[in-house]
Amino acid sequence: MNRLFRTAGAVAGLAVAALTTAAWAQQAPKPEQLIRWRQSAYQVIGWNSNRIKASLDGPYNKDEVVKASNAIAALANSGLGSLFPPGTETGKGWHDTTVKATLFTNGARVGELAGNFSKEATQLAAFAQTGDAAAVKEQYGRLTRTCKACHDDFRNSN
Amino acid sequence: MNRLFRTAGAVAGLAVAALTTAAWAQQAPKPEQLIRWRQSAYQVIGWNSNRIKASLDGPYNKDEVVKASNAIAALANSGLGSLFPPGTETGKGWHDTTVKATLFTNGARVGELAGNFSKEATQLAAFAQTGDAAAVKEQYGRLTRTCKACHDDFRNSN
Repeated sequence: MNRLFRTAGAVAGLAVAALTTAAWAQQAPKPEQLIRWRQSAYQVIGWNSNRIKASLDGPYNKDEVVKASNAIAALANSGLGSLFPPGTETGKGWHDTTVKATLFTNGARVGELAGNFSKEATQLAAFAQTGDAAAVKEQYGRLTRTCKACHDDFRNSN
Repeated sequence: MNRLFRTAGAVAGLAVAALTTAAWAQQAPKPEQLIRWRQSAYQVIGWNSNRIKASLDGPYNKDEVVKASNAIAALANSGLGSLFPPGTETGKGWHDTTVKATLFTNGARVGELAGNFSKEATQLAAFAQTGDAAAVKEQYGRLTRTCKACHDDFRNSN
């Protein structure tokens, strides 16, 4: 009987596990959704980068730069990596993904680049608060170089 | 001569104004770009809303909720209204805009709704830091009601 109970318990456990997996599979966002979200996130970063550039090229607007750099910093620290799970190497969100397959097999380099992006974005948001346009300009350069570094390594150009 | 100089000056001034306008027109994002950016911003808000909901429905993950609510708050306070200038009542970003034309003529109501969204998003980010899941759940409800209020008034359902 003891053994039977154990077996019954194990079967019940498996059934629960299967249900949980099924529920998760049902709730988990599909690859197309994840790709759409990440494409959207980089668009929003691009929008806010444009706003900062407009302030650096034209009359400096501290409020604009604060809002834009806060948005970039929050996204840079939001865990964008979770939008690149296995299974999203190819696929279409708003458009076909431009990610290179090597991103999914080079965690150390991706982590290094993501860390640099977060660090420089956080620093830009801090400088923005001071209203020091020269410091913002220099830091904005540092930030955009982290964008380019990742594009160079892991984004197809077309 | 005096009159001639004045006339020449006026003509030169007009030429400069025309050049400035042309340069601005060249730099200013096109309606399609603005619509794409705003559609992207709401997608990113949706992604982060999903993450918070997953934590409230499943095992609570404080780090996830902090990151997600910070991203939503930064976007809610980023000045999304600037993505709805005149001339973007219709048009296609990633897809045809679903905005109602009344958004562009009802500044007082739009401002009220946007203010509510910013306020509740900022409060959610503050509660997230405490790790108090019950407070986050209640505040998340308040936040999503501000989303719905704006959708009800200013978004076409299809």
